[in-house]
Amino acid sequence: MQEEKQPIFKNKRTGDEMYYFITRLYPYCRSITGNGTRQTLADISSIIPLAITEVPTGTKAFDWEVPKEWNIRDAWIKDSNGKKILDFHQLNLHVLNYSIPVNKQVPLTELKKHLYTLPDQPELIPYKTSYYEEKWGFCMSHNQFSQLKDELYHVYIDSSLETGSLTYGELFLKGDTDDEVLISTHICHPSLCNDNLSGIAVATWLAKQLTNQKLRYSYRFLFIPGTIGSITWLSRNEKDVKKIKHGLVITLLGDSSDFTYKRSRKGNALIDKTVETWLKTSGKSYTISDFIPYGYDERQFCSPGFDLPVGCFTRKPFGQFPEYHTSADNLTFVKPEKLEESLNALSDIIEIIEKNETYINLNPKCEPQLGKRGLYEKTGGTNDSKITQLAALWVLNYSDGTNSLLDIASRSGLPFSTILKAAEALKECKLLKNDRN
Amino acid sequence: MQEEKQPIFKNKRTGDEMYYFITRLYPYCRSITGNGTRQTLADISSIIPLAITEVPTGTKAFDWEVPKEWNIRDAWIKDSNGKKILDFHQLNLHVLNYSIPVNKQVPLTELKKHLYTLPDQPELIPYKTSYYEEKWGFCMSHNQFSQLKDELYHVYIDSSLETGSLTYGELFLKGDTDDEVLISTHICHPSLCNDNLSGIAVATWLAKQLTNQKLRYSYRFLFIPGTIGSITWLSRNEKDVKKIKHGLVITLLGDSSDFTYKRSRKGNALIDKTVETWLKTSGKSYTISDFIPYGYDERQFCSPGFDLPVGCFTRKPFGQFPEYHTSADNLTFVKPEKLEESLNALSDIIEIIEKNETYINLNPKCEPQLGKRGLYEKTGGTNDSKITQLAALWVLNYSDGTNSLLDIASRSGLPFSTILKAAEALKECKLLKNDRN
Amino acid sequence: MQEEKQPIFKNKRTGDEMYYFITRLYPYCRSITGNGTRQTLADISSIIPLAITEVPTGTKAFDWEVPKEWNIRDAWIKDSNGKKILDFHQLNLHVLNYSIPVNKQVPLTELKKHLYTLPDQPELIPYKTSYYEEKWGFCMSHNQFSQLKDELYHVYIDSSLETGSLTYGELFLKGDTDDEVLISTHICHPSLCNDNLSGIAVATWLAKQLTNQKLRYSYRFLFIPGTIGSITWLSRNEKDVKKIKHGLVITLLGDSSDFTYKRSRKGNALIDKTVETWLKTSGKSYTISDFIPYGYDERQFCSPGFDLPVGCFTRKPFGQFPEYHTSADNLTFVKPEKLEESLNALSDIIEIIEKNETYINLNPKCEPQLGKRGLYEKTGGTNDSKITQLAALWVLNYSDGTNSLLDIASRSGLPFSTILKAAEALKECKLLKNDRN
Repeated sequence: MQEEKQPIFKNKRTGDEMYYFITRLYPYCRSITGNGTRQTLADISSIIPLAITEVPTGTKAFDWEVPKEWNIRDAWIKDSNGKKILDFHQLNLHVLNYSIPVNKQVPLTELKKHLYTLPDQPELIPYKTSYYEEKWGFCMSHNQFSQLKDELYHVYIDSSLETGSLTYGELFLKGDTDDEVLISTHICHPSLCNDNLSGIAVATWLAKQLTNQKLRYSYRFLFIPGTIGSITWLSRNEKDVKKIKHGLVITLLGDSSDFTYKRSRKGNALIDKTVETWLKTSGKSYTISDFIPYGYDERQFCSPGFDLPVGCFTRKPFGQFPEYHTSADNLTFVKPEKLEESLNALSDIIEIIEKNETYINLNPKCEPQLGKRGLYEKTGGTNDSKITQLAALWVLNYSDGTNSLLDIASRSGLPFSTILKAAEALKECKLLKNDRN
Repeated sequence: MQEEKQPIFKNKRTGDEMYYFITRLYPYCRSITGNGTRQTLADISSIIPLAITEVPTGTKAFDWEVPKEWNIRDAWIKDSNGKKILDFHQLNLHVLNYSIPVNKQVPLTELKKHLYTLPDQPELIPYKTSYYEEKWGFCMSHNQFSQLKDELYHVYIDSSLETGSLTYGELFLKGDTDDEVLISTHICHPSLCNDNLSGIAVATWLAKQLTNQKLRYSYRFLFIPGTIGSITWLSRNEKDVKKIKHGLVITLLGDSSDFTYKRSRKGNALIDKTVETWLKTSGKSYTISDFIPYGYDERQFCSPGFDLPVGCFTRKPFGQFPEYHTSADNLTFVKPEKLEESLNALSDIIEIIEKNETYINLNPKCEPQLGKRGLYEKTGGTNDSKITQLAALWVLNYSDGTNSLLDIASRSGLPFSTILKAAEALKECKLLKNDRN
Repeated sequence: MQEEKQPIFKNKRTGDEMYYFITRLYPYCRSITGNGTRQTLADISSIIPLAITEVPTGTKAFDWEVPKEWNIRDAWIKDSNGKKILDFHQLNLHVLNYSIPVNKQVPLTELKKHLYTLPDQPELIPYKTSYYEEKWGFCMSHNQFSQLKDELYHVYIDSSLETGSLTYGELFLKGDTDDEVLISTHICHPSLCNDNLSGIAVATWLAKQLTNQKLRYSYRFLFIPGTIGSITWLSRNEKDVKKIKHGLVITLLGDSSDFTYKRSRKGNALIDKTVETWLKTSGKSYTISDFIPYGYDERQFCSPGFDLPVGCFTRKPFGQFPEYHTSADNLTFVKPEKLEESLNALSDIIEIIEKNETYINLNPKCEPQLGKRGLYEKTGGTNDSKITQLAALWVLNYSDGTNSLLDIASRSGLPFSTILKAAEALKECKLLKNDRN
């Protein structure tokens, strides 16, 4: 593999670009429907050519139906002096997501029934939703809650919950085959950066990298509201999902923790082996966990009626970091370099998906004499020539038609890219051929 | 599962009842034959309707034959002053079990050839037997042994070893099918509480709990002398043992150590998975070990000619606690609450055997909308509703016809009872059906 | 197994004999061809009847060809005063193995291009070779190198690199069957004791032990130059290698580290299970590692075109000890008792290969009554009778036609020799028969 080919999958300083994109999207009040989500998709469309789908309220989707569309313009609480003590425009987490409108004066005891706080994290404001029960509510810090006086408050939410539609975005990149790789990320969370502006940014830049490339697989990127979005998409694309050969739900990619891979329900799908081998040979710490039927949209892709080979790639998983679903999941919680590291990881993983093949050793009886072919010099400078020599021996020994390059990377503990480099050098020397040739 | 059904398998304060039963049986001088064993079976029969079998001395049982029956009425050693220095009536362990009669005066040097002690545990009296070599002997503490003076001793054992029979008890509870669950416990040890009055008591109360219940399986409880008892039973029931689908040898259930499960010879029988899953999800510390061809009567049930799916459920295994086969395995070594915990464990295990089924998710494409069915409220109070929700997701995702509830409990790490509760709630909601329907 | 049979596989005080043999061979300047290697084979032939093969320079061997033969008579460096500062006759490692002749005066700057040292181990002289690139060179300690003055040096190597042959030795011991056990060791290293005079000595004494024994398998011992030797041998014996049922490359057997077994490429061949079980039950610390396609001649035997069941048995593997390929791998680095321990280990392993069988329990229903057959007395003194009793129970329980004695040793954790002893006693009692009878 020549150095010039590298920029296909790698891109420098994109971390800053992605971080800037997140700062732009952070203030929008996203939800599972509504204009905040629509604006988010419009912004993504400025970078990659998204197809936007609007699915009307009431549309059936398996056991579910598309809910009313929610929009919100303003919300606040004023104390008895008319002073705003809480303001939606300062932070959209302050409003219970999907709150119905309200405009009335309530005493403290009544107000408290509509307030959500985090007693164990008294400085943080929680993120709460009520998609399927019509009610109104506010979220505030427990510190503020503790100091509320026993007086009359004016609560005001200028929202609407009306017939409308659910919006999602989709990008399809046609490759050499109809076999698809699915990359899905959720777009329904309001001002939360890691969950999931990080996933939105990384998916967008990954799609951008792959655009206009010659690809073996076709790629389908989904930017969808969590749960109802993936259920809706699956119900509208039921006949075609069998084309999905590998898939990843990506989210929580901007914080500073290690990567985590949650296996597909199958547990031994090629995507599972691919990500696990990449992690194992990455030199980084990581966690791999078995499929569990809760988490993100892999729940739907891996429901037993579909059982798609879709894993979930994150850093620290949902619920396992203190900033999760709080106002602390903000612009200081995600880091440009971590976004970039995540993007590079996914680029590497896609490189494996694209380039993995099974080769046949054309000189299977004893080792070939590598030295006389100048193989060591051919494969790079002196620094990594020993590694490449090892990689060549691994490729030769295991290329008997039963082991792919990914299998060999996994067994040897050498990165796929090193194994690929060795395989390409051996192919040039006529010591190796593609299994399919 | 409704709360009212619980008492089928659970019973409160039975620990005290079982402990009281042990105190009653403790003084009997049991052996592999004889009246002590017969009396033990009679006492058990006062609680559950045992069928008693007498097998005559000399009856062939595979490579073995039923030995002569042993009975003992009195035994002592007197010193040269005529003072009893050892008395069978104080503790029946003092006599070598199966000792032939003796009545003579012997010097110390001769006496010592017939004395058994524990030099490393000098305060304890050992339990020793000589079933297949006719001899006489006494067991005493090493402290006493060390102080024996060089004088003439009068040794007296009023025992008999004569043609008679071997006695065992059996309780058969007919269930919906002829498939049997075997519960076997040994009854041949004299005044030793954990080994095995604990097993006798727990087996008796477990049988009592199951009596008059509607059961899916038939249950066969064996109260038999160790080794020769199980060999004799197997030789008389050879044609029917194929009905045994699951089995446990239970013993050593009254001390304060953790549970240990020794797998059947098959190693992956359903009884193995059942007990292992129960242990794994019990929240208790435990040990699981592979089958080894020594231990209790699982040796015979798992001999290669039968290879029955019979494991062994104990607390600390034989030989691994200092009180084992000594006078310290007494009434203070077993605890009512530990007996009860053991009984409850076995009740739970039988609940799994009885209730395990494979279900089919009737809404396999994406998750069903649980909230609209009031499933969370249906399955209990707020405290455990989150657990039940998780359990419901596990049951839904894995009920594809290839995973039983037990498989799902094992995979999820949730107790079978929680998984069962979720499955029953989902069945009520028409989201699940039995695989066989 | 009777005690008198033991000397077949065990031999006392052979450690000293092997060590003495190493001291004799240490000074020879071995290489992949030439008279040092020839002399080594001649010395081995004084102990076991080796067949010597000479393969002419230029003979094709798969992708390789036999190189020119290298011989060396003298070599030195003199300083400007005519003083020898380095002398081949003091240590043959001083000359780059396969150096072409040279005889000229060179300044220090030129000389340095031909010097090899170990900066991190400044007192040691490295072992270096240049088989396939014609050049000259010397090896010296880095300490000496650092003190070289800027003057004119006289370099002299009286070597020849000419058409000749590659020499290897072979011993074939015919057993009852044509199935072969291959033992291969490399003979191409000059004055290095652990790598590989230790392997040469142990292979020689192992062959000596097996000579004139009645053997089930045929045994083939190879004493060959590394890489090119095994490739040449394989190319000349391609049709017959399928007879090789088990094989070991043995080397690095004289130092004081634990044993290491590197599995065959197959990973689960019988030789793998044999060596692993022996290690597991040896009571010694050890390491087992998966096959990797570098190391010694197992690389060739396990190339995918052959994929023979050949593992590699060593102490600390190549490159993992500081003395590796340096002048410190000398006569003080190897120990007689370690050589003997290695020989005994291989004797035990061959005992397993020879004696492993699958038996059938003739009394499979329940345990037989061992006591009445005097089995305990029959199998040895009181000390090990409990162990033997356990071994008998293991053999009886698992001898159902699916488990060999090796399987039973592995499962029980008891040494194969103990299991074998129990099996032979049970066979005498008619409780066991050979599966094939």
